[in-house]
Formats: sequence, structure tokens, C-alpha cells
Amino acid sequence: MADRKKRPADKVNLARKFELFEEYWKPKIVGEVNDFHVKIVKVRGEFVWHRHEKEDELFLVTKGRLIVRLRERDVALGEGEFFVVPHGVEHKPVAEHEAHVVLLEPKSAVNTGDAAGARTAAAEWI
Amino acid sequence: MADRKKRPADKVNLARKFELFEEYWKPKIVGEVNDFHVKIVKVRGEFVWHRHEKEDELFLVTKGRLIVRLRERDVALGEGEFFVVPHGVEHKPVAEHEAHVVLLEPKSAVNTGDAAGARTAAAEWI
Repeated sequence: MADRKKRPADKVNLARKFELFEEYWKPKIVGEVNDFHVKIVKVRGEFVWHRHEKEDELFLVTKGRLIVRLRERDVALGEGEFFVVPHGVEHKPVAEHEAHVVLLEPKSAVNTGDAAGARTAAAEWI
Repeated sequence: MADRKKRPADKVNLARKFELFEEYWKPKIVGEVNDFHVKIVKVRGEFVWHRHEKEDELFLVTKGRLIVRLRERDVALGEGEFFVVPHGVEHKPVAEHEAHVVLLEPKSAVNTGDAAGARTAAAEWI
């Protein structure tokens, strides 16, 4: 059922949104599709190993290269490539140089999953 | 709760997936994220006016230009731009020349929404 009629938001230009911030590993929300958020994040260096109990997580690279490390293999993503980490699967994103990544995941997802700590960051709209 | 441990699928190169088919307005599934599908579609010409009762729908252009017509305005999308049509909002996608579009929507979404007919097509994995 349509719970309410929502006004369409504006269109989003991904490259321009990435110009609005500098910091790494702090996802920003740029869109919502039902109970999902579209987020963007700049990455460089290594993130922490973690997993999401319920949420699958899509990583789409729009600039640079990202390695999604899994326990049994590495998945190397270039521009225009995406990978979905299923819920429950441990992963560690790594980027040698700055990369721009679009994330797609349920709104309930927290960036560090089961590994809450210094890297945990609440995403805000940008 | 993690209902089961799912094996990660392979990574997806969007440009290569678009090389696998020619026809317009027939979305193909290229990924799943919980109860959402990631689809790709080649478009050219005009689609039908329709709306989705429950599903928001994200259109991300990766090649060419797409106009998402709404009753009160047109939204013109170029490469690297996306727009979310909220559920309940009538829309009609139009492209003068061939364009490549990534769709993100709940698995329950049907391409023609409330306007089932000749253009209705069940999406299949590619």
C-alpha cells in the first residue's frame, strides 16, 4: 500500500556530491529507496574487519580501485564494477589510493557492523 | 538475524553486462541486496506512463541521457546522475538516443507498474 504520497527529491549528480567532503570512511546518505539508503564514501587505506548480521551491502566503485577482502579471497573492483557482500560474511575494504564508492544497503546498516569502535560513524544526508 | 550464510556472488562489471543484450526496455537482473534487485536496462524512445504502488525506483544513468517525465516536470539525467521516483508517483521514461540505465528497486516491482500490457516484461538474471 502507498502509505503516503511522497514528493520526489531532486536528482543527484554523484561526482558533485563527492566534491562536498574530504574525509575518508565516513559514508554520506545521498538517496533513499524504500527501506534502503544510497550512500557515498571516500576511502583510502584499510578499514576494519566486520560483518553485518542482517544487511547485504553493495559496493560500486565510481573512481579509483577498491579491494574488498574476504576471508577466502580478495575482490578487486575498478570503476563501473560492483560487488555485493552478503549478510554474515566478514569483509574488510582496502584502497591503496583514494577511491570513490557508492554503497547500497538497508537503512539499518551500521558502517562497522559487529565491530563497533573508533571507526563507527553515523551516516548523515549530504 | 542471519537466516543463512550465503556465498558471495562474483563481482559485476556493468559495461560488460550491457554488452550481453541488445533489446530496449527489458530490464535484466545483475545483483541482489536483501529484498532489492539491481537491474540494468537499455532504453530508447518512450516508455508508458505508470506508477508503482509500493516500490520506490532509482534510475542511475551510466551512458547517454534519460528523461524521467513526471506529471509536473521533466527530470533530465546524464551519466553519473540518479533520480528516485517515489512509490505512487506517475512517471514515463524517455530517451531520444540509446541510454544505459541501472535500476534499483524492491524485488516485487514490475516494470510497467499499474499499466500492465504489451510492455510488461519479467526481469531475468543475466
